[in-house]
Amino acid sequence: MSHQLLPELTHIPSSIASVSDYEPYARERMSTAAWAYFSGGAADEYTLQDNLASFRRYGLWPAALASLQNATTQTELLGQTLPYPIMLAPIAYQAMAHPQGELGTVLAAGAMQAHMVVSMQASHSIEDIAAQAHSPLWLQWYWQRDKAFMRDLLARAHASAYQAIVLTVDAPVNGVRNREQRANFTLPAHIEAVNLRGSSQPTSSHGAAGTSPLFGSDLIKYVPTWDDLLWLVQHSPLPVVVKGMMRPADVLRAQQAGVAAVIVSNHGGRTLDTAPASLDALAAVVQSVSVPVLLDGGIRRGTDIVKALALGAKAVLIGRPYLYGLAAAGPRGVAHVLHILRAELEVAMALCGCAQLSDIGPHVLYRPLAD
Amino acid sequence: MSHQLLPELTHIPSSIASVSDYEPYARERMSTAAWAYFSGGAADEYTLQDNLASFRRYGLWPAALASLQNATTQTELLGQTLPYPIMLAPIAYQAMAHPQGELGTVLAAGAMQAHMVVSMQASHSIEDIAAQAHSPLWLQWYWQRDKAFMRDLLARAHASAYQAIVLTVDAPVNGVRNREQRANFTLPAHIEAVNLRGSSQPTSSHGAAGTSPLFGSDLIKYVPTWDDLLWLVQHSPLPVVVKGMMRPADVLRAQQAGVAAVIVSNHGGRTLDTAPASLDALAAVVQSVSVPVLLDGGIRRGTDIVKALALGAKAVLIGRPYLYGLAAAGPRGVAHVLHILRAELEVAMALCGCAQLSDIGPHVLYRPLAD
Amino acid sequence: MSHQLLPELTHIPSSIASVSDYEPYARERMSTAAWAYFSGGAADEYTLQDNLASFRRYGLWPAALASLQNATTQTELLGQTLPYPIMLAPIAYQAMAHPQGELGTVLAAGAMQAHMVVSMQASHSIEDIAAQAHSPLWLQWYWQRDKAFMRDLLARAHASAYQAIVLTVDAPVNGVRNREQRANFTLPAHIEAVNLRGSSQPTSSHGAAGTSPLFGSDLIKYVPTWDDLLWLVQHSPLPVVVKGMMRPADVLRAQQAGVAAVIVSNHGGRTLDTAPASLDALAAVVQSVSVPVLLDGGIRRGTDIVKALALGAKAVLIGRPYLYGLAAAGPRGVAHVLHILRAELEVAMALCGCAQLSDIGPHVLYRPLAD
Amino acid sequence: MSHQLLPELTHIPSSIASVSDYEPYARERMSTAAWAYFSGGAADEYTLQDNLASFRRYGLWPAALASLQNATTQTELLGQTLPYPIMLAPIAYQAMAHPQGELGTVLAAGAMQAHMVVSMQASHSIEDIAAQAHSPLWLQWYWQRDKAFMRDLLARAHASAYQAIVLTVDAPVNGVRNREQRANFTLPAHIEAVNLRGSSQPTSSHGAAGTSPLFGSDLIKYVPTWDDLLWLVQHSPLPVVVKGMMRPADVLRAQQAGVAAVIVSNHGGRTLDTAPASLDALAAVVQSVSVPVLLDGGIRRGTDIVKALALGAKAVLIGRPYLYGLAAAGPRGVAHVLHILRAELEVAMALCGCAQLSDIGPHVLYRPLAD
Repeated sequence: MSHQLLPELTHIPSSIASVSDYEPYARERMSTAAWAYFSGGAADEYTLQDNLASFRRYGLWPAALASLQNATTQTELLGQTLPYPIMLAPIAYQAMAHPQGELGTVLAAGAMQAHMVVSMQASHSIEDIAAQAHSPLWLQWYWQRDKAFMRDLLARAHASAYQAIVLTVDAPVNGVRNREQRANFTLPAHIEAVNLRGSSQPTSSHGAAGTSPLFGSDLIKYVPTWDDLLWLVQHSPLPVVVKGMMRPADVLRAQQAGVAAVIVSNHGGRTLDTAPASLDALAAVVQSVSVPVLLDGGIRRGTDIVKALALGAKAVLIGRPYLYGLAAAGPRGVAHVLHILRAELEVAMALCGCAQLSDIGPHVLYRPLAD
Repeated sequence: MSHQLLPELTHIPSSIASVSDYEPYARERMSTAAWAYFSGGAADEYTLQDNLASFRRYGLWPAALASLQNATTQTELLGQTLPYPIMLAPIAYQAMAHPQGELGTVLAAGAMQAHMVVSMQASHSIEDIAAQAHSPLWLQWYWQRDKAFMRDLLARAHASAYQAIVLTVDAPVNGVRNREQRANFTLPAHIEAVNLRGSSQPTSSHGAAGTSPLFGSDLIKYVPTWDDLLWLVQHSPLPVVVKGMMRPADVLRAQQAGVAAVIVSNHGGRTLDTAPASLDALAAVVQSVSVPVLLDGGIRRGTDIVKALALGAKAVLIGRPYLYGLAAAGPRGVAHVLHILRAELEVAMALCGCAQLSDIGPHVLYRPLAD
Repeated sequence: MSHQLLPELTHIPSSIASVSDYEPYARERMSTAAWAYFSGGAADEYTLQDNLASFRRYGLWPAALASLQNATTQTELLGQTLPYPIMLAPIAYQAMAHPQGELGTVLAAGAMQAHMVVSMQASHSIEDIAAQAHSPLWLQWYWQRDKAFMRDLLARAHASAYQAIVLTVDAPVNGVRNREQRANFTLPAHIEAVNLRGSSQPTSSHGAAGTSPLFGSDLIKYVPTWDDLLWLVQHSPLPVVVKGMMRPADVLRAQQAGVAAVIVSNHGGRTLDTAPASLDALAAVVQSVSVPVLLDGGIRRGTDIVKALALGAKAVLIGRPYLYGLAAAGPRGVAHVLHILRAELEVAMALCGCAQLSDIGPHVLYRPLAD
Repeated sequence: MSHQLLPELTHIPSSIASVSDYEPYARERMSTAAWAYFSGGAADEYTLQDNLASFRRYGLWPAALASLQNATTQTELLGQTLPYPIMLAPIAYQAMAHPQGELGTVLAAGAMQAHMVVSMQASHSIEDIAAQAHSPLWLQWYWQRDKAFMRDLLARAHASAYQAIVLTVDAPVNGVRNREQRANFTLPAHIEAVNLRGSSQPTSSHGAAGTSPLFGSDLIKYVPTWDDLLWLVQHSPLPVVVKGMMRPADVLRAQQAGVAAVIVSNHGGRTLDTAPASLDALAAVVQSVSVPVLLDGGIRRGTDIVKALALGAKAVLIGRPYLYGLAAAGPRGVAHVLHILRAELEVAMALCGCAQLSDIGPHVLYRPLAD
């Protein structure tokens, strides 16, 4: 069950040519339990797989002889300029993947001028992470039953110049994480969600035989509701983004509640197994709202980004790809992952005849008939 | 062909996190022939596989920020309250799987407050099983040509407080059980359908070369007909449920004949190979009748239960999963299987925003286009 | 490339429970080249595989509580009674599969009361085969450019009580038989199409580099045409059946030309690769004509026969299954193959609630949506 | 990573019966890097695979009893007669595959009377290649920013009796060639695009971390545009053909710009991954224009050619198949590949009842429903 962990890569081998190539290198540099935690999904992992497979259900039309003068990948989001539409998604406990943890990730984000969404369950304090930042940070948020704690953390985020709060709404309860269970995953002693010190959340438990495992527990009473979203929008000094919505009706209601943007996501396939792939939910969601919609889940190629934008996403978030870059090669690996995807995005745009992101639309998509 | 059987598990290892994880443990604790009998299906086992695959053809929509106050899985069926909508399906000869046989299963059913459908071909008498029961029992029924024998057994079931008779209608003749044939399956000498002592059924045989293998045999004359169902409804002191109907017209006719409920089932893929998956037959059947419709076949996950209920099932039955739990770990294994499924059901309901079973409807289903 | 051939089976092991189970036993009892000849198909063998796969695209609806009094599989064809609707398709050079060759096959056909279609390329004379027959024989026919030879052979067939002539129309030229080429297949010295002695056919050849491989050869001038079919119908003392038609327009024209029946077939996937599966062509063909339509190609199960009849076939032909039975176990193997399929057919009919072949119709078919 | 290269085949073994059979023989006769270059595609190689898979989505209807008198595969293209509709597609640097390189290929083309499209990046001068030609040559063209250089090369092509210029429009920038990167592919020292000596193209580069990898480079300024196509049509003494168009609108505009023919192609899956298969783009393209449309990509069988022509192609080009023939067996291998495909084409036409190419139309196609 355990294996000898290999040391961090000191140079990037030629066998790493795409972001997926980092995966085996990351696996060899993590404990079996940490690998189960980061790479696994819920239950039978159908949604985890479908997040990737969904991109293969769309093709792209090559365009001939288009002019590419002044080509650029620049875009605007919540009043800020992004040189290219790729952000780092929130991932908890990054110190399990690499000794530098989030401090390594934020260095790479700054070097590559990419937005980073810091997890509320980061292994470093939000202030320490912000101190290393050279690009904009957003703070991911799990609803806490202790409102005083939340008010305090909102103030700290504001003070550290975070620029948005990202409320996760697709994990009111833990998913069925069989891969973690089989690997006996528990948080190592030296890893802690330091930013949650002082918050008192009910713990999840599957109860004793014969009792209601979840519905009989305390946990179920504190899942966040629409009223809680309203509270957060009212009390946050920063714009509130919701992450993890998939249904058009939910997205519309969130817009009415005052959110600044929506991230379509199924939590990387880690909560409800057999939920639709994020990409499959995207098109309907985009048509429901006027706030910017971002896509999280399954991006592994520049062509994937073109497809997400063609279906209406303003930008995309990547998760496991950069985490594997971090585990394999530290901040250099994270930067390389961003560089590969940005380069692939530009190649794909050029071959599709798109000189600006706004040139990317449904007309570039090829949807084959079932075969 | 034979192997050294491993002893019963004395604790549940972390590698068993889902009900399917019991399968290899069960296999190592049975003879090759018993394994072929319990795990096998008819012919090429397409229906056996499709019973599982059919659930993957539906997805579930996650819901955001729904209130889960007073969440419960409770339901009513034939005048009784079930704490959660999972029943134990009839399985014959359980003493081949574990020394306690049905006496072990009924203990677990009682501990978990689950209904159990006892097979007419149980290896213990229906009275002995009832004596250990702490939850409601139904009795599965194969039509017998000896009506006096049937009247006597109906009276015994009534006397032992069974609460329904479940007539199996999808196995008028034996399926083509190639896996059993290849494993030379025969009933071990110490195993017997004790409740059928005194009944005289014609035996199945494939006849001599050149003769009509089945249609020339006695067996074909005694397959149950609609008239026989009417006889049973008239003579049974208990409500009659039919199990194994798949076509809407049959279900409607059964309701007109006075049955109390219908179980959509294809006998676990053990009779007619290439019959539709139970789930695929469910939706049309539900729309045909007003009596409760239950689903049997292919349930392995809490999300599967949500899908069955979304398509109209009142409750589901599980078969092989609990039998494997029994074989691997005795009554404790059966109870664990029920506990896992109940917990997964609650997680799935929470993530779909359903606080009651009645909140589960077609709107939670995501049916992807073919790809 | 060669291997030690195993001797004929002296009893049927329990591992042979379905007709497909004969395949590995047959393979071990043939030369590599003979195996390539009998088992192979054209080019990439897509049609060969699709002949089997097409049956999996249809399901069967189980029926509940139907009466099966007086159940029978009997049918009528060209004025004769068949106890069950399974015939033996023409296969050339059966002496390559077993020393008795067609003489072994005809013994089994007689014992099982099955019609046999003798190949014009049989390794025994049509008279010797007829001498052993105890069930009706038809004679398969390849168009010969020598009409005198054909007249003579028609007279011999008539004299030996053959009951129909079966003109093959789907192999005007040889298919691209790569598997045979890779195995260096040539006819062994002691094997000969004895019934073709005296006929002078042009030989196939792929020509020299730079020339037209087929269209420049003599062979192409003598492919059979519609005029030739008319000639055969006029000169044959026996009813003429055409084998190998797939398109409704062709079948209709054949009926107008006076054929007595049509066999839908793609030559077992041995001529035009990527031709449709026989079953996929059947339904449209049946609707075009009033003469009986038979199906050849892909039958491996009793349920397959029910599906073919539900789509309109009057009876089916089997080829490789009985050839493998012959190779593995001689006449006993051929008889066993017929017995298995007949038994499976009766089981499938019983479970579908069909007591006669005429009860089998489109309503028993379940055609799932693509998934 | 490296292996001992095997010598050229001195005779063709029976294991090579179809053109795909050359593949393993070619692989054993190339360096790992050269193999990655010739066999690889862009990114995850979905389009590379789909070019082949697309042909399996169509079937062919066998026709019965059609006359094949005067059968021929002859056709006309740009005023020339082709004995059969198969041309050799442009492939760069053929000296990496075989010492004779393009000089070997052109010998085989002449022996087989096939048109050859010589790559502008050939390893031999266009004059040396033309000197060995015994069949018509076209010259493939990449747009060069140096117009004087282009004028000079056009004059040389004209002087050497090339008959058309084939402008490639589907590779304005390099594709994401991960397989080449992983194999550390670089052009060997002794291989050179000799015909490009004197041209000064900007070099591709993925830039430094944090900068725009492609859009910030010089390369992007010189991608060919519609104006450049007009320039080429005006200045070329030879008809201009465009290669690499997939969208009907592009093809129509190219026709309006004065091109003589269009080659539907996705560059063998080497530029935009997840672009549609060439065959899938063909039908819509054909309906848009009146100039001849050729198909490039995925042809491996005579039946593939029939399908391409049925969808409207005038002729097809083959690439990797002949390159593998060259690598394995030199000019003899190239000729054999052409011979196999021509023979398979004639067999497929005969079985479909087509005596001329003009008999091939949509009616020969069978498009199965999704399954």
